[in-house]
Amino acid sequence: MSLMKSWVASANDAAHPFPLNNLPYGVFSTADGEPRCGVAIGDMILDMQIAEESGLIALTDDPLFDVPFWNALMEEGPAVWAALRARLTALLGKGAAEQAKVEVLLVPMGDADLHMPLAVSEYTDFYAGMQHAKNMGAILRGSPDLPANWLHIPIGYNGRASSVVVSGTDIHRPNGQTKAPDAEMPSFGPSKRLDIELEMGAIVGTCSELGQPITVDEADAMIFGYVLLNDWSARDIQGWEYQPLGPFQGKAFGTSISPWIVTSAALEDFRAPTPPREKQLLPYLHGSKDGLFDIELEVLMQPEGADKATSLSKTNYSRMYYSAAEQLCHHASGGCEMNTGDLLGSGTISGPDRSEFGSLMELSWAGREPFTLDTGETRGFIEDGDTLTLRGNARGKGFTIGFGDCSGKILPAKTWG
Amino acid sequence: MSLMKSWVASANDAAHPFPLNNLPYGVFSTADGEPRCGVAIGDMILDMQIAEESGLIALTDDPLFDVPFWNALMEEGPAVWAALRARLTALLGKGAAEQAKVEVLLVPMGDADLHMPLAVSEYTDFYAGMQHAKNMGAILRGSPDLPANWLHIPIGYNGRASSVVVSGTDIHRPNGQTKAPDAEMPSFGPSKRLDIELEMGAIVGTCSELGQPITVDEADAMIFGYVLLNDWSARDIQGWEYQPLGPFQGKAFGTSISPWIVTSAALEDFRAPTPPREKQLLPYLHGSKDGLFDIELEVLMQPEGADKATSLSKTNYSRMYYSAAEQLCHHASGGCEMNTGDLLGSGTISGPDRSEFGSLMELSWAGREPFTLDTGETRGFIEDGDTLTLRGNARGKGFTIGFGDCSGKILPAKTWG
Repeated sequence: MSLMKSWVASANDAAHPFPLNNLPYGVFSTADGEPRCGVAIGDMILDMQIAEESGLIALTDDPLFDVPFWNALMEEGPAVWAALRARLTALLGKGAAEQAKVEVLLVPMGDADLHMPLAVSEYTDFYAGMQHAKNMGAILRGSPDLPANWLHIPIGYNGRASSVVVSGTDIHRPNGQTKAPDAEMPSFGPSKRLDIELEMGAIVGTCSELGQPITVDEADAMIFGYVLLNDWSARDIQGWEYQPLGPFQGKAFGTSISPWIVTSAALEDFRAPTPPREKQLLPYLHGSKDGLFDIELEVLMQPEGADKATSLSKTNYSRMYYSAAEQLCHHASGGCEMNTGDLLGSGTISGPDRSEFGSLMELSWAGREPFTLDTGETRGFIEDGDTLTLRGNARGKGFTIGFGDCSGKILPAKTWG
Repeated sequence: MSLMKSWVASANDAAHPFPLNNLPYGVFSTADGEPRCGVAIGDMILDMQIAEESGLIALTDDPLFDVPFWNALMEEGPAVWAALRARLTALLGKGAAEQAKVEVLLVPMGDADLHMPLAVSEYTDFYAGMQHAKNMGAILRGSPDLPANWLHIPIGYNGRASSVVVSGTDIHRPNGQTKAPDAEMPSFGPSKRLDIELEMGAIVGTCSELGQPITVDEADAMIFGYVLLNDWSARDIQGWEYQPLGPFQGKAFGTSISPWIVTSAALEDFRAPTPPREKQLLPYLHGSKDGLFDIELEVLMQPEGADKATSLSKTNYSRMYYSAAEQLCHHASGGCEMNTGDLLGSGTISGPDRSEFGSLMELSWAGREPFTLDTGETRGFIEDGDTLTLRGNARGKGFTIGFGDCSGKILPAKTWG
């Protein structure tokens, strides 16, 4: 696959995140209008609501784009997903017969605010990065040994959908219970060990049925697309609360996603295998396709007042041990119904070296080894006013599939109103 | 408070679960119609959709009952909740001027199928019963000692909303990964240790704001009502998966609720205090009201083919250590946004004696001490074809506030389709 040319000139730059090969799906608004679905092409956004109303896009009897999220399309399933992608490719490709009709429906990205691209039904977070699991074991328990089930189960836990927000949304530092190891009683107040987790989010497009398990290949076909995902984490709250039933308030105050859903179709050429299995997986977790993707990832931090961000870490989604399809298959293995709009966090993505670690907990080794920003400031964890950004790009020959930044700024904790 | 008389004669029986004092909210359908909201009064259901269409109920500019769940009313908040209760009390009370107009809107309960009374937004399950926590510690870890945080935090974890079903829905035995202690590898197949958990479910009526903690009193006022809740659990799946991130597939295949939402208003006279605090709670968990309710609870089991169910256990909701208001306050303490339709499971309710235990794990002491049913059969856990039922009643002077049975029958596990 090489760069597919568009008549939208900015989309033809080899480094631009939104070429015709990408066509990611978002929700935008301009000064005078309500949020509506849009497709990114170069520096422009195609207004899908008007495109549908005008008849340029007419895939189904009922409208898909009269709501400000992409769930209605997702519910239609893979055949309609493919038909839409083919139609958009035709409308936006170089030499398109309908260029003049489409041109008037383009909105400059600079004029647009971006919103949540989907209505999140439920949010599940996994723990599928081996290096991250080993690092957390070494930091918290003094041993990098994996939990006994880790090589057999794509371990996950249910998170909170209500706190998933789009990039650009400020996050208030959470309050919570914490307890110092030598304290007799816990105390309550703002988290002092606020962290990020660099993850990918897989978006479930079609549903499974309550009581009915699915195969890995069926799961793979159900995944509509991917976003970058920052699973903000309060390590001190999490440390005190998580035994015996897992993370709760330490993970419930915010989860940021990038604004554009990059479809599975756009990523197809970037499929990458999971690493060699250290223990053979049970047959229900076997699939026929490479389930990871070669996506370069980066974490950046910008303190309040600094004029640019410091790059903290660079890694790749293909570092994960379990794929999203394996995770989704396991998620439904007990008969759990999976639905349109379910969001699956991959788990923190860390490579083998510190330069590839995907959380501050790992980068500063639990604050014991603070790192230095380009401004000269040091950090163990996040301070109020810091902006954290995730970036992701899949690099093709002469083109880039980008996700758009996943950013969030930390504001001070709120108290009771 | 004594029995409030209705012109619906069956509602005036001291033992009837649905007197005028109760007025619980459900969703029903009859042979010829779509599901719609209804209010139980004696052996009848008041059709709220037609009551609203006909103008008998007119609380808001926009309709509340054109959808088959109670979320639209819940969103309106406590003033409208109180107004509706007052209006229903007037319409259904003895001597009501509009009796003739209301009478034609009553449907015999025997002609109705009951459906989910709410659209569940997110489901959270807590672990707030001290006796249950001690029993599980004794069974699983050989010690009844509570986890270090248990007396300080109303411990909870996020569950799966998509598998919450109404009473009467059959539940397929889940498949899952399990591993015997002496086995080298895990295996995959139907759960062999299928269990129930006797719980109450609290339904969140109004929303909190992302980033904003709430007080216990604010939380109490946000709770719209309560249902009985059976948190079906696969102990063998749970035992292998739950470290380190908590229950996942062992709890994701089904959660049953009773069909009628008993409002907080109907339960007001049955408030009961939480037991003495063994450690003082942090100030954010202090509220001004008694947060539990005096509700008698019972667990019954009926094997396939038996003509009646065996009572396994009787206890009371007031046995809990934490109230739903405390749980909801804690849930929002880190800034987690709580929403209309969120469902909070209380945690398993067990009293001090075996006759009060709220799970089969406890009743059979992990299967080591099977119990005998009235049919002469013994059980450690649930077998295919067994129906499990929860019952709940608050007993007033001359009247009863009932919940309606929370039942589910276990069907064999499904395999891949």
